[in-house]
Amino acid sequence: MAAPPEARPALHLPARDIPIPTSVSPEAQAAMAMAPLPEPERPAPGDRDGWRAMIAAQDAAIAGMMAERAAGAPVVTTERDVGAHVYEITPMDLAEGDRRVYLDIHGGAFVFGAGDCCRVMSIGTAARYGARVWSVDYRMPPDHPFPAGLDDCLAAYRALLSDHDPSEIIVGGASAGGNLAAALILRARDEGLPLPAAAVLMTPGVDLTASGDSLRTNLGLDPLLPEASTPTFAMYAGERDLTDPYVSPLFGDFAPGFPPTILTTGTRDRLLSDTVRMHRALRRAGIPADLHVTEAAGHGGFFGTAPEDHEIERELRRFAESHWP
Amino acid sequence: MAAPPEARPALHLPARDIPIPTSVSPEAQAAMAMAPLPEPERPAPGDRDGWRAMIAAQDAAIAGMMAERAAGAPVVTTERDVGAHVYEITPMDLAEGDRRVYLDIHGGAFVFGAGDCCRVMSIGTAARYGARVWSVDYRMPPDHPFPAGLDDCLAAYRALLSDHDPSEIIVGGASAGGNLAAALILRARDEGLPLPAAAVLMTPGVDLTASGDSLRTNLGLDPLLPEASTPTFAMYAGERDLTDPYVSPLFGDFAPGFPPTILTTGTRDRLLSDTVRMHRALRRAGIPADLHVTEAAGHGGFFGTAPEDHEIERELRRFAESHWP
Repeated sequence: MAAPPEARPALHLPARDIPIPTSVSPEAQAAMAMAPLPEPERPAPGDRDGWRAMIAAQDAAIAGMMAERAAGAPVVTTERDVGAHVYEITPMDLAEGDRRVYLDIHGGAFVFGAGDCCRVMSIGTAARYGARVWSVDYRMPPDHPFPAGLDDCLAAYRALLSDHDPSEIIVGGASAGGNLAAALILRARDEGLPLPAAAVLMTPGVDLTASGDSLRTNLGLDPLLPEASTPTFAMYAGERDLTDPYVSPLFGDFAPGFPPTILTTGTRDRLLSDTVRMHRALRRAGIPADLHVTEAAGHGGFFGTAPEDHEIERELRRFAESHWP
Repeated sequence: MAAPPEARPALHLPARDIPIPTSVSPEAQAAMAMAPLPEPERPAPGDRDGWRAMIAAQDAAIAGMMAERAAGAPVVTTERDVGAHVYEITPMDLAEGDRRVYLDIHGGAFVFGAGDCCRVMSIGTAARYGARVWSVDYRMPPDHPFPAGLDDCLAAYRALLSDHDPSEIIVGGASAGGNLAAALILRARDEGLPLPAAAVLMTPGVDLTASGDSLRTNLGLDPLLPEASTPTFAMYAGERDLTDPYVSPLFGDFAPGFPPTILTTGTRDRLLSDTVRMHRALRRAGIPADLHVTEAAGHGGFFGTAPEDHEIERELRRFAESHWP
């Protein structure tokens, strides 16, 4: 096949075996030795029934895995309708008058993680920060492409602002949730709303054009993001151009204002490139931004099982506590 | 071949083509499209004459490439004997009474970069920081293994301390120089000397056991560090154990004290793992430490030719200025 005229020469890498490194904890090595979960077959993009069924099965599996841990958690969960469906998770030992709130935007490739899945994941977030969490159960494809999900996140942020000082609010998310958290802040700012105290962007998918180098260099090394994981980008964007900053916040302009941000990723993360480019974009705009990269970790870290994961959780909490009142 | 009983299963990656990414500047893409420099054949470890000849030829080539840029630089260079051979580079426009000094430990895999090479590289450092530079022309293998080089760095630091407040001194280096900079600080601290104001560790080789995952995952992707680049580790360590913290500072104890540190690397750097693990080790010890990772850059960045390189240079200068008096 003739290369198109603009194609750059490719680097050819021979086949090779990559050992599990001894540079990580035994727990991380054990996580790396596990076979990756079987990847469910993706329906054709237009097959809505197929997507609904596949998403429901995946979400049930994830919620099931996490339900036991969540069941015993000392929190009170309430549901709110604030123009979007929100779970409010309140730690039982929260001091009276503690007004800090973490606006949690769940991950899941823009299609997974709704409903009960969202609820149980946010219980973990509340424990991590020792703070109240609002978790947005935002609308998603196949039925609700952009901007429905972002609209829901914005509705939740507006609702929080109605009875919180913005300095009491931290906005965060992982993966697709990192995308939505960043896009929410850009759009809130553009609409004249005040900025939150800080942002937490964990291995955020902020470039839906998929130009990041690590999508290719870390393919096969990242156990959580196989080759078939990006088609949901187009399902999410719908009619919107993939370079629109509300769809791909990496391409936003941060100079007019963005809160202090912490970003996390791993050296085997296929979104390593998205994360480090987002960090650089913020730094170029003069925004305080801290980057933390875990040795040999993929998109899901070591699935919460390793000391490396807990170390990053402590960084996140320290960061949050230094920005909350 | 039967696997040894302790071997972990390896991940098998098929052969593949990795394109030059569109996520970097045109200048960076051009740098990535250049064929890597031909790697000189490495003499056998015991062949001292062979190493001396190969090192001399490499150093002459590097100094030659940089000499033109260095020749016109508005600096005054003097040589000092402080128990070690040091080049002092003073920018001509330095304000009178400016006492800030950058103690520069050059890179070069523990064998390259001596003499004139060291001098011309430090002229670039003086321009980068707009400050006086002391560059240590430290002794190296094959004739001078550990601890000769570290002794020389310590001698230079002691000499600076004799007429500087430690808050006026920043210590930094790239690659092997990052190793020596970190080891110098650990050893100075252990010997009761005061800490410098800050440390600059650029893609530091801080684990000479070569356990870092990116040494393998980025093999073939990093144009500056081919497979044959690690044998000098053993030549440098000599009789000393590779896990000794003065040889592999990653294994040091930073809790008793280490200055605020900036660390830089790239996603294709074979020392990405060394850099991010050093960052984590410092953070675990509660040391302020900033990590900056450049998209798709290898061990040498984009060889100073791309806006991405200049952006990191600005980060380094900003960091230094925020820690100098």
